[in-house]
Amino acid sequence: MNLDFFFYPKSVAVVGASTIPGKVGYELVKNIVEAGFGGDIFPVNPKGGSILGLKVYPSVKSIQSIPDLAVIVTPAETVPGIVGECGSIGVKGVVVISGGFSEVGNRWLEEELVAYARKYGVRVIGPNSAGIINTSINFHACMEFRVPRGPISLISQSGAVGGILFALAREGCIGFSKFVSCGNSCDVSEVEVLEYLLMDDDTGSIALYLEAIHDGRRFIDVCRKFRGVKPMVAFKAGKSSAGVRAAASHTGALASPYHIYSSLFKQFRILEAPSLSGLFSSSKFLGLGFRAKGPRIMIVTNSGGPGVIATDLCESFGLMVPEPSEELKSKLRSFLPQICSLRNPIDLTATGGYDWYYGVLKE
Amino acid sequence: MNLDFFFYPKSVAVVGASTIPGKVGYELVKNIVEAGFGGDIFPVNPKGGSILGLKVYPSVKSIQSIPDLAVIVTPAETVPGIVGECGSIGVKGVVVISGGFSEVGNRWLEEELVAYARKYGVRVIGPNSAGIINTSINFHACMEFRVPRGPISLISQSGAVGGILFALAREGCIGFSKFVSCGNSCDVSEVEVLEYLLMDDDTGSIALYLEAIHDGRRFIDVCRKFRGVKPMVAFKAGKSSAGVRAAASHTGALASPYHIYSSLFKQFRILEAPSLSGLFSSSKFLGLGFRAKGPRIMIVTNSGGPGVIATDLCESFGLMVPEPSEELKSKLRSFLPQICSLRNPIDLTATGGYDWYYGVLKE
Repeated sequence: MNLDFFFYPKSVAVVGASTIPGKVGYELVKNIVEAGFGGDIFPVNPKGGSILGLKVYPSVKSIQSIPDLAVIVTPAETVPGIVGECGSIGVKGVVVISGGFSEVGNRWLEEELVAYARKYGVRVIGPNSAGIINTSINFHACMEFRVPRGPISLISQSGAVGGILFALAREGCIGFSKFVSCGNSCDVSEVEVLEYLLMDDDTGSIALYLEAIHDGRRFIDVCRKFRGVKPMVAFKAGKSSAGVRAAASHTGALASPYHIYSSLFKQFRILEAPSLSGLFSSSKFLGLGFRAKGPRIMIVTNSGGPGVIATDLCESFGLMVPEPSEELKSKLRSFLPQICSLRNPIDLTATGGYDWYYGVLKE
Repeated sequence: MNLDFFFYPKSVAVVGASTIPGKVGYELVKNIVEAGFGGDIFPVNPKGGSILGLKVYPSVKSIQSIPDLAVIVTPAETVPGIVGECGSIGVKGVVVISGGFSEVGNRWLEEELVAYARKYGVRVIGPNSAGIINTSINFHACMEFRVPRGPISLISQSGAVGGILFALAREGCIGFSKFVSCGNSCDVSEVEVLEYLLMDDDTGSIALYLEAIHDGRRFIDVCRKFRGVKPMVAFKAGKSSAGVRAAASHTGALASPYHIYSSLFKQFRILEAPSLSGLFSSSKFLGLGFRAKGPRIMIVTNSGGPGVIATDLCESFGLMVPEPSEELKSKLRSFLPQICSLRNPIDLTATGGYDWYYGVLKE
């Protein structure tokens, strides 16, 4: 399925736009405007008026042209009708930011939403989504803060996790290509987005924050079809029994036992991250094109304690931290003083500076 | 054993003091001076001269009074003799910053050092130590950067780990009371320091970074004697086989199998931290006097993903994240909108602000 209308819309309506700063309906319009989106932006609110210099339309139908995409932030009970209205005039995709659906037990309302979407042939991301981003066209229809352009694409069942990774990216001097907060995945599933991103040229690596996969069969098919095409890193939340319940109150998802995910990840060479920072750093290095040649790791440090901790971590991930060959050791000994340990970690001690690091890394 | 002369010296000599900024022998004097130590500081270097306005003495013997403590930063082979000299004139304690002893295989040199110390009755911290800190008297004889006063005391077999925890403390707005970098623990062991700190009124919680305990028998005795007196948190490094080898090249320590440590920690109610940040945050909250009443945890969040991750973590530590009672739920429902999940985590959603948090925490 081509999801281009979600990622490359020429125009976007924001239904439930607000004139009051701080309200979701205002901040969303502000984010889209300030990110520098080049297409048309149509705020929609029955009250009319204008927001950030943009004319506010009383309804989607009253917009002079048909927007490619609509982002909806109105109260839950109004959403199914609005989705239907969007579909009836030919809007191709809808992102529903509004919450209050299956994640709080309102399954019937979510089913109504899906029924309207199917009836009028419109695709839906969400509800309970934090939005969608494509930095290559400065499109930021998202509640999370802005993030620079870069090689990582992120599919997340939590908007806040997007925010956390964006914050890490700022510190880590790397950016994102595309981000989708799937929310409850009532129509477009995380698997469908994954398939799309696996074919996306701007995406160097794919990071997945998963609480539950909604369509396991399709997930397996997509992973099999695209095995090895692009590096993927996943963090699975909802591992414990209480975590599964928490995931259910978050996106209405019912998670399968963790070990099933774990073995799927292994089978399809999806790297499993032990933490969100691991998810970020792995997708960063893979996105930049770094690949390890094998499982043998050499650690170079200028302080012993962190060297020991890094060694433990390597072994816990199944990597090896072998002693260097006598040949390499004698090469290193030729320019490193006696005080340095050469047994891997190579410990340059607190005196170790640029020259020694460079010397060791060159060998 | 009373170690007051290490932590409350009235005067300190720095043997191997240097006039060249950037050199360990200069930075150490600078740290002591700039921290605002009220006692006498005697830099020692055969070259004489002055450092930061302080007169440099050609030898420890030439100082007009006997310093309580000497900090040594001279090349390894000179250290045993200097320790002997210090002891012979009545210096009570010596902190050896210099490395190049058992951690790089020079066991004989370390044995010589110990022999001199025993002969002249002087106690030794190190060698290969990053120094010692007591913020209550602004005493900072340490290579790591300065840190504000506070309730945490840290015993570490790595100086750099001290630096990492100090950095976390700056961000986390909390300070340290005492810090000892034990280095190779050739004389004063981490266990002896532990016993001292367990009796220290300024210490609210004790953080331990351990690669190996040098005197297991005594460790058990101390833990048994002081069980429950003060909260202790430990991070054990050198868990894996390569990690044990790395620890040996770091402080010359031979670590026992990890499970022995793990069960000792359990037996003596020493909290085991899974990471350095865990070591810091646990000792922070325990140092401030926070105590959990039991294993039942209520998580309040304004974003679902982090709530699910926190739930998983709680369960992995053996804590419980139970559903709230119907009574509590109906109380919360009285002021929280339908969109919030009340199943623990209590998810206030992105709209959740101060009032809702306050309301939930009050109940």
